[in-house]
Amino acid sequence: MRGVVLHVPGDVRVEERPDPRIEQPTDAVIRVTAACVCGSDLWPYRGIEEVDGPAPMGHEYVGVVEEVGSDVRTLERGQFVVGSFFASDNTCEICRAGYQSRCVNAVPVGALGTQAEYARIPLADGTLVATPELPSDDLVPSLLAASDVLGTGWFAAVAAEAGPGRTVAVVGDGAVGLLGVLAARQLGSERIVVFSRHESRQKLAREFGATDVIAERGDEGVARLEDLTDGLGAHSVIEAVGTQESMMQAIRATRPGGHVGYVGVTHDVQIPGEELFFSGVHLHGGPAPVRRFLPELIDLICKREIDPGRVFDLDLPLEQAAEGYRAMDERRAIKTLLRP
Amino acid sequence: MRGVVLHVPGDVRVEERPDPRIEQPTDAVIRVTAACVCGSDLWPYRGIEEVDGPAPMGHEYVGVVEEVGSDVRTLERGQFVVGSFFASDNTCEICRAGYQSRCVNAVPVGALGTQAEYARIPLADGTLVATPELPSDDLVPSLLAASDVLGTGWFAAVAAEAGPGRTVAVVGDGAVGLLGVLAARQLGSERIVVFSRHESRQKLAREFGATDVIAERGDEGVARLEDLTDGLGAHSVIEAVGTQESMMQAIRATRPGGHVGYVGVTHDVQIPGEELFFSGVHLHGGPAPVRRFLPELIDLICKREIDPGRVFDLDLPLEQAAEGYRAMDERRAIKTLLRP
Repeated sequence: MRGVVLHVPGDVRVEERPDPRIEQPTDAVIRVTAACVCGSDLWPYRGIEEVDGPAPMGHEYVGVVEEVGSDVRTLERGQFVVGSFFASDNTCEICRAGYQSRCVNAVPVGALGTQAEYARIPLADGTLVATPELPSDDLVPSLLAASDVLGTGWFAAVAAEAGPGRTVAVVGDGAVGLLGVLAARQLGSERIVVFSRHESRQKLAREFGATDVIAERGDEGVARLEDLTDGLGAHSVIEAVGTQESMMQAIRATRPGGHVGYVGVTHDVQIPGEELFFSGVHLHGGPAPVRRFLPELIDLICKREIDPGRVFDLDLPLEQAAEGYRAMDERRAIKTLLRP
Repeated sequence: MRGVVLHVPGDVRVEERPDPRIEQPTDAVIRVTAACVCGSDLWPYRGIEEVDGPAPMGHEYVGVVEEVGSDVRTLERGQFVVGSFFASDNTCEICRAGYQSRCVNAVPVGALGTQAEYARIPLADGTLVATPELPSDDLVPSLLAASDVLGTGWFAAVAAEAGPGRTVAVVGDGAVGLLGVLAARQLGSERIVVFSRHESRQKLAREFGATDVIAERGDEGVARLEDLTDGLGAHSVIEAVGTQESMMQAIRATRPGGHVGYVGVTHDVQIPGEELFFSGVHLHGGPAPVRRFLPELIDLICKREIDPGRVFDLDLPLEQAAEGYRAMDERRAIKTLLRP
């Protein structure tokens, strides 16, 4: 089959890769309907994260079940499914507490590579959620978004305790930040402030529910937010970047007793203990347990109550994956959808 | 009046200090019935925190109202009161959310010094809580504990979401850690593990409700805790020390999705972002909003349902404050009570 492989930073190719097959009785093999490029794929692409290449790429996916292992009970060939970037058994104590991304048997799907024609998904019963019926084509981008960026933005909003009466601020105007806006709106927050200096992203943020836009960053951005919140800061802050600056901006933007939900994969971040101590904020985040939210998100999408697929502003055949990476790297695209 | 003054590290003296008087119409002046030495007083005493000396010392106190300012509405001369280490208006938006230690008008009581015969307490209506009647002498130590160490241990247990069905681990066997044990028990946790290698503290921890004691520290201690929790770690971890080692021990002792409540005043702590990210824990803490809990704690103490005053294992006249500091510094005493 054809699949995306990263050789060295900046060198992404679509090549022949071995067809996946059932290896464990709990596996499923899916025919990938759509995959995409994640902001976190850019870390190795940019050489900031080490490339253990040639490496298959991709961990976001929707597709049609092609084959299931002998122990798979809840899925059958032909169903349309959405999965998450960590395969999980969904039965262990950690999964049952809602932290499937830290399942005791978790398998990172990224190592298997879903930017491809087919993919093997381990622990299929605990990982994949089938749609009620085969979705129409126009729902595919939104269902694909649920696989990671929507699920991650949603988790960030939940971790930040977005909700009625709570002012939300969002650090990061990538796909996850923008869908954090959508999630905060859906969870009932009336006032949502997004930090962004890109016109197209500001526009989409407003369409998703943002009420205010702040172009300044860092402490200057925090000062603007304080102007909007009686000097107190936001109740709920979503951090969707993962740098030292963005993390400190998120902590400083949060009022005492408020909540930071952070989902940007942190790189070289050190949180100063004393500043965190006196900030009095709640800090929660990490790799989003997307599986927790999938049934609800699929339901909202199939009922057309939310349209998260709008974050895809570049739609390419799989063979043009390299251009998809380039466009995101150069911030010409918010997010690239790839169709095998 | 007589009061404790720290001149340089290690040099604590009881000296004549000016009698406090009403300075603002919202002030009260109290005659201090009992004060005590806090673990955090040891930071400047040991020279780890800069001493801006000669500095009046003490921020924990119970006493009898001597005089109130013209704007004080809820208190009158002769009442027995308990206060917290931050004076707060208890009416601002941050106070109403339960974070009185970060009140927009907060005043640190430590700068005024309650290890003395009298103390001026700013924002008296929002800071002091009167007992229903004058307490009998044997309740004084427990009411004094409510002023900081109990309130702080209680906040840590609440921040760590201790409760029924949740295993709690406590890092730190000082007065705050021990009262974190008491709080976790009171909040309904059945299994409480304390990290301690001091026999007398282990004993008190067990009397307060600890079910297990681990003598190992750091990663070795975490491994022992995992042995007790199916390899998962605790649901709730109280951090009551404030060093790099203790903070990392607390984070690593917590299962994914679990909660760390940290109240040890952090010194030279840097939390590595990437480890925190992948830990998936909730982190909350800071200077405890003791005022939030005072009415409930005073009620439990006056009904003799809890006996937190047992953490005081050294009871001295104010004039012997220097010995009280020394005994705590040398870990001969858990906590020193001082009687003016």
